[in-house]
Amino acid sequence: MKTLELAVIPGDGIGKEVVPEALRVLDAIADIHGGLKFNYTHYPWSSEYYIEHGTMMPENGLELIKGSDAIFLGAVGDPNLVPDHISLGELLLRIRREFEQVINVRPAKQLRGMVSPLSNPKNFDILIVRENSEGEYSSSGGRVHNGIDEIVVQNAVFTKRGVSRVMEYGFEIAGKRNGHLTSATKSNGIAHSMPFWDEVFKEMAASYPAIKTRSEHIDALSAFFVTRPETLDVVVASNLFGDILSDLGAAIMGSIGIAPAANINLNGKYPSMFEPVHGSAPDIYGKGIANPIGQIWTAKMMLDHLGEPEMGEILLEAIERTLESGVKTGDIGGSSTTQEVTDAIIAAMKEQT
Amino acid sequence: MKTLELAVIPGDGIGKEVVPEALRVLDAIADIHGGLKFNYTHYPWSSEYYIEHGTMMPENGLELIKGSDAIFLGAVGDPNLVPDHISLGELLLRIRREFEQVINVRPAKQLRGMVSPLSNPKNFDILIVRENSEGEYSSSGGRVHNGIDEIVVQNAVFTKRGVSRVMEYGFEIAGKRNGHLTSATKSNGIAHSMPFWDEVFKEMAASYPAIKTRSEHIDALSAFFVTRPETLDVVVASNLFGDILSDLGAAIMGSIGIAPAANINLNGKYPSMFEPVHGSAPDIYGKGIANPIGQIWTAKMMLDHLGEPEMGEILLEAIERTLESGVKTGDIGGSSTTQEVTDAIIAAMKEQT
Ligand SMILES: CC(C)[C@H](C(=O)O)[C@@H](O)C(=O)O
Ligand SMILES: CC(C)[C@H](C(=O)O)[C@@H](O)C(=O)O
Repeated sequence: MKTLELAVIPGDGIGKEVVPEALRVLDAIADIHGGLKFNYTHYPWSSEYYIEHGTMMPENGLELIKGSDAIFLGAVGDPNLVPDHISLGELLLRIRREFEQVINVRPAKQLRGMVSPLSNPKNFDILIVRENSEGEYSSSGGRVHNGIDEIVVQNAVFTKRGVSRVMEYGFEIAGKRNGHLTSATKSNGIAHSMPFWDEVFKEMAASYPAIKTRSEHIDALSAFFVTRPETLDVVVASNLFGDILSDLGAAIMGSIGIAPAANINLNGKYPSMFEPVHGSAPDIYGKGIANPIGQIWTAKMMLDHLGEPEMGEILLEAIERTLESGVKTGDIGGSSTTQEVTDAIIAAMKEQT
Repeated sequence: MKTLELAVIPGDGIGKEVVPEALRVLDAIADIHGGLKFNYTHYPWSSEYYIEHGTMMPENGLELIKGSDAIFLGAVGDPNLVPDHISLGELLLRIRREFEQVINVRPAKQLRGMVSPLSNPKNFDILIVRENSEGEYSSSGGRVHNGIDEIVVQNAVFTKRGVSRVMEYGFEIAGKRNGHLTSATKSNGIAHSMPFWDEVFKEMAASYPAIKTRSEHIDALSAFFVTRPETLDVVVASNLFGDILSDLGAAIMGSIGIAPAANINLNGKYPSMFEPVHGSAPDIYGKGIANPIGQIWTAKMMLDHLGEPEMGEILLEAIERTLESGVKTGDIGGSSTTQEVTDAIIAAMKEQT
């Protein structure tokens, strides 16, 4: 029996609704597999937890989850309770940083049964590989002067190590897909970081002669997500550019409610973390209408990562069959509840086996 | 007779094809108006000029055009001849900087007769007001160490003055439109500049109680351009975010080939510059198939700026009638030539008067 220890953090808002649903799916996967078991340890870290304890997690929080095989997270943040820079900074972004989850991977793929806002989406299948530890997201910087003379400097910090490892990841994964890697740049406007980014990309491309490469400025590339997403395969991007592109990817898929993400630790010292792209949507929390597919597709990415890609495939196929059958939540044009969608996905998995 | 002095810089590639067409349109406008005259002075500054002279413009270039009422520019850049950072840096970006064109304005509006890649574009009408002088586009920064230890720092510099004036422009223009202003931020990820941006926005909103305001993170906002563009009116954004959003705006309009832009000088010391969003497209240059509408709509923005909004309206109406009639270049699904489209626009203007 292969037993996987999962640290489960539902977080805020609809995170608390969709995570239990995804765990039901994982239990069904374990059943189907036969030789697989998930042990869940739940952590109630959230904005409510902050209200009660004054911190987003206990002092030894990271210690507690460090030994798990993966972290399965719902959504963090509820600006009505706690400012975002605290809730996100002390929980989501802290785990990403301290557990050296240096890469964020997000697929944008046209699923069967989804209606894209694009009139002719042509079966796109993009994988966004985002740098997740440095770049534009940096606490370096500060202010001088006051009033109308105030000046704020924000530093973006790019390291050869950081840029190389995300690009290497991009080249490797492009090799396992369609062999095509696009780099998101803005070296025609941003003077230091982006020419460096281009240099590293060019240098590395030389050692991957089988990969077709392309560099596009972030403005043009954002437009391509709308006008010709089918021409993209793997896209490697800085922290900020990857953030923007992955929301665009979610948009062209038809809803941010279905988009999954993985925060990958590469050095094996810490667990990776799996969390959907959507936020906690406090406005719809508690109504049973949240789309569970983002969290469930995220579980599929976790299965792939934990060495169970066949199970991941069964799960994605079940998601597509469910969408095709019309069992959908309101955000994607259906009228089913969160639980009904999950039930349909579980049934569609069983059908395949 | 009102005589307007225009400095005309066709630049590279299709700039050389579409600028003369837009001048034909301006001449027709002068005819229709009766009391208006345009004097054109042509400057051949371009990548070819660089090959010949080693600079993108003569030493006294800025002096030469400084006294004009406006600069009318085609497109700059041809990476096969001159690296972008030189061609753009020494011509386009230099004029923007030295002539203190601190604001870049770009509409994204669904025109009659255009086919959006969105299946249900719902008549969006957005105006992007982009900071054009500071922020993420900065030459401040540098490198330390070598090889795998190399570290690159890129500074973004935001000033109270710069941020206030672009926001003020946004609030004022929102007041003349639908009274709705959205600020593009990323204060949940970027620690110094974006919280500052939010502060200034909030502060200024207090003195514009009639304007409905909204702040959206750039990732979510990019997605809204795809999923619900009709909910946006004026969007105020930093240099980089405005750059990205305006290409997205062009994408949802149906082609970057029709998108116009204005680089606005606010202090009256220098002329403003009008240039379409598209680049020089050297691959299609010389074939007579370039879409002239970007340049012609840009002429409309120039007319508005030069105190001739009625002429601007006639021109935009003529563009829409031409699109509706199906006289279009290949990039937007037609088979007409650059000149045929211009002819049709001129005819449609005359029809109205
Ligand atoms: C060419 C480039 C520097 C420029 C910019 O980003 O400002 C262009 O993309 C634009 O938007 O006008
Ligand atoms: C909440 C925010 C800091 C976060 C990010 O930009 O990383 C989110 O947008 C995401 O993409 O996971």
